[in-house]
Amino acid sequence: MREDIIVGINSIKQALEANRPAISLLIDSSAKLHARIIEIINIAKPLKIPVKKVALQKLNELADGANHQGIILITAAFEYADLDEILKKTEHENENLFAVICDEIEDPYNLGAIIRSAAGAGAHCVIIPARKSAGLSAACAKAASGALEIVPVCKVVNIAETIEKLKSRGVWAYGADSGGTSIYQTDFRGRGVALVIGSEGAGLRRLVKEKCDMLVSIPMKSEIESLNASVAAGIIMFEIAKAKE
Amino acid sequence: MREDIIVGINSIKQALEANRPAISLLIDSSAKLHARIIEIINIAKPLKIPVKKVALQKLNELADGANHQGIILITAAFEYADLDEILKKTEHENENLFAVICDEIEDPYNLGAIIRSAAGAGAHCVIIPARKSAGLSAACAKAASGALEIVPVCKVVNIAETIEKLKSRGVWAYGADSGGTSIYQTDFRGRGVALVIGSEGAGLRRLVKEKCDMLVSIPMKSEIESLNASVAAGIIMFEIAKAKE
Repeated sequence: MREDIIVGINSIKQALEANRPAISLLIDSSAKLHARIIEIINIAKPLKIPVKKVALQKLNELADGANHQGIILITAAFEYADLDEILKKTEHENENLFAVICDEIEDPYNLGAIIRSAAGAGAHCVIIPARKSAGLSAACAKAASGALEIVPVCKVVNIAETIEKLKSRGVWAYGADSGGTSIYQTDFRGRGVALVIGSEGAGLRRLVKEKCDMLVSIPMKSEIESLNASVAAGIIMFEIAKAKE
Repeated sequence: MREDIIVGINSIKQALEANRPAISLLIDSSAKLHARIIEIINIAKPLKIPVKKVALQKLNELADGANHQGIILITAAFEYADLDEILKKTEHENENLFAVICDEIEDPYNLGAIIRSAAGAGAHCVIIPARKSAGLSAACAKAASGALEIVPVCKVVNIAETIEKLKSRGVWAYGADSGGTSIYQTDFRGRGVALVIGSEGAGLRRLVKEKCDMLVSIPMKSEIESLNASVAAGIIMFEIAKAKE
């Protein structure tokens, strides 16, 4: 899916308010303009973003299955952030890093929901691998509901090496794994934290798991083995956020 | 989407192991049978469930977009549970009820993820309204990843009246709302709890909100207003589960 379009009212509003560079705003020519779409047009106009009425079919094609609500923003291609710059910045500001590493999350809605939670939990960045991962597509941006404007996303070649790099800077890597220590018995305080989330089907890969300093789990009250990847990530992230207060 | 089919290896395995009444097991006739599918056939055979090879297109039609992994179980239609019986049972066993009320969750994947989290958090039941809600479709069952066999789901005509009914039995209704008290400052102990989750777009409806004893929120560390509905539900449910220990 293209990475340079944003669909849906909330996501577009947040992108415009965050001054995301935009090329044009496309509106469904067949629909009556309702108040929330007019609101967005009124934000776009002073920013000199051309507003174009297009056929619904064109919007459907661009959105590629995502629910566009009759409005699409074409943006400059999404810029991934540079992990080294984020590390430099947190070190300069004497902050303990809080990074969320998504290792091969395949569903763009899950990735978007994780980025949204990462923004809510105050993470400094989300890290994804260049291969075998959902990217920052329209579906992901929609699920992130504006969070892409808040939390930088870094794309790296090798997740295991990235974990090594973070560890060399004193960050602890916690892998989410049903065999791990309860998150409620884990002390996330006092140092940088990288939370590593594995893929929906298979969880953490062996090599990535081995690189983690510690495996953590959410204690289950029934024979259910695991939660949805984005739900599990959210629960652990907010436990980390609480510890960082 | 039909409510009487289950797609995907994990969900089907869990359904068969839970003795879910099944009519037939459909296998993609064009694919090589791999070990995990053979394992399921070996569970189905002694249960006298007919195993049929069908065209991939037939599976795709039945799955209606859900990822079926080449295998579909046709079951007896899903049976919703009776809320009164659940209430009687928890009262008889002197347990504090833990119910999750999904008011107009529209996305079957979100509903499935919420049911999965409810099973993991040890909830007694999930309650959904008869109208304007995702149902227990194949997509929902897949996202629930077997949790439908663990946590009963009740369908009710009127959510506001159901909250009233629960309150009359001493259960406290907590509505998830970004304007509410922090969940970390809320004492969920010592009484029955009903967690009320609103729809993805609009949150809690006014009338439903008014029926709640208290509104609770997840404190955000950035200008992100809210999380994905299933992620937010999961975070609050596990906070409740922790309090109930």
